[in-house]
Amino acid sequence: MKRTAYFISDGTGITSEALGHSLLAQFDSIEFEQITLPYIDSPSKAKEAVALINNAAIVNGIRPLIFDTVVNEDIRNIIAESNAFKIDVFSSFLKPLENELDAHSNYSVGKSHGIVERTRYKDRIDSVNFAIDNDDGAKTRQYANADIILVGVSRCGKTPTCLYMAMQFGLRAANYPLTEDDLEFNKLPEVLAEHKHKLHGLTIDPFQLSAIRHERRANSKYASLDQCDFEVREVEKLFKKLNIPMINTTNFSIEEISTRIMAQTGLERKMN
Amino acid sequence: MKRTAYFISDGTGITSEALGHSLLAQFDSIEFEQITLPYIDSPSKAKEAVALINNAAIVNGIRPLIFDTVVNEDIRNIIAESNAFKIDVFSSFLKPLENELDAHSNYSVGKSHGIVERTRYKDRIDSVNFAIDNDDGAKTRQYANADIILVGVSRCGKTPTCLYMAMQFGLRAANYPLTEDDLEFNKLPEVLAEHKHKLHGLTIDPFQLSAIRHERRANSKYASLDQCDFEVREVEKLFKKLNIPMINTTNFSIEEISTRIMAQTGLERKMN
Repeated sequence: MKRTAYFISDGTGITSEALGHSLLAQFDSIEFEQITLPYIDSPSKAKEAVALINNAAIVNGIRPLIFDTVVNEDIRNIIAESNAFKIDVFSSFLKPLENELDAHSNYSVGKSHGIVERTRYKDRIDSVNFAIDNDDGAKTRQYANADIILVGVSRCGKTPTCLYMAMQFGLRAANYPLTEDDLEFNKLPEVLAEHKHKLHGLTIDPFQLSAIRHERRANSKYASLDQCDFEVREVEKLFKKLNIPMINTTNFSIEEISTRIMAQTGLERKMN
Repeated sequence: MKRTAYFISDGTGITSEALGHSLLAQFDSIEFEQITLPYIDSPSKAKEAVALINNAAIVNGIRPLIFDTVVNEDIRNIIAESNAFKIDVFSSFLKPLENELDAHSNYSVGKSHGIVERTRYKDRIDSVNFAIDNDDGAKTRQYANADIILVGVSRCGKTPTCLYMAMQFGLRAANYPLTEDDLEFNKLPEVLAEHKHKLHGLTIDPFQLSAIRHERRANSKYASLDQCDFEVREVEKLFKKLNIPMINTTNFSIEEISTRIMAQTGLERKMN
């Protein structure tokens, strides 16, 4: 039986989604239809949402679930009147936090969200630009300003990992692809050697690498299993020889690769 | 007085951070030191974390806060023994969900995380590659496969927004910068005209645009307020004339720009 789950927020809905996903992922015997309702920031929008949810309850013949991260209590009360089972993040946690901190939360004293996003926004744009400017061994190579430089063979996941680190954590992440030429000399290109302490290696299962490369250039030498096998073997040898820490990306998501590298290297999140 | 807050997770820590940040943001009279402890996935790691937390309690002279999204009950019980105030997401919400769904969660029946990440991972990499390949009016222009094409003047936020939509939601987002030439003709370049229904405009305050452009090319005509003012005025005129929906990015974070565009256009998240 399919249950509908709504992630409701007065903002982007991203926190509500993340929390809802991780809770629902614990019930893999049940199929969920997951719907995000962001920017529910007025009583009228809340009433529209309730109408939608109540309608789903009738159509499905079973009450939907709500994961609610709306901060404003008036809006939350409207949502609470729907015919749904509600997980209410703020009323569960905000009151206990107020007691513990011996302080009132902004909403309980009638203040609205502070715009703390502004500097965060700029840091992030700068970091994303840095990642793009320093992608794929690009000309700019502002490695002196990099927090980390990812190295590995072509298509092992360097670019998305750099962009994720920039976007989520405000880190300046560059990347450099090690080519067959680099690997045959069995040493680092000069431009990397002087930043060796910032290097982190990525490696990958040769079969998966070959599949990824085939999508880019089908039936090329570049995508052949022989070539992938050779490059991965040589790059791992190089990482070991030079004591460059490495992570195998084969079974990890971008979030996992990024956060594991950060845990391994002690790199701290720049944006809170 | 400074309080230390720990975000503890058996995975990446991203859900725990997001939840913790949004709750702590409600207390702007208090300064928090925020520390993420990801991959706490064994009793021994949990014990190390507890030692760290208990030490902070002594050093700070006040008990720290914990936001815990660890799923495994044994590990959670170890963390619960620390001298901290604990917000325990799973014990607060998982039991009530089990009752409502009339089902056991994976952990209560001893199963570990399912690897649902694999296809999600591939979709996302494909989307990030699409965004990079179709960035800045690049040659590829696979606009037939795009979910959305962002248009606007140079440096108004198109690239990071496209990358965020790709990374977070698996959307295929392209972007095309409208130049002075395009604006003088007061019409769309041909390559865009046939995809008009996919276009979404970005605009920005000319003062902020000028500041951003000065960082790239200080004291250039490109960065001058006159030039920025002209481009923004003309691009907004063009959007209105052609009924292209638009968003002013000046006061929004990348998450907000992305999710507001999606709400406005009805584009749905592709990854759940």
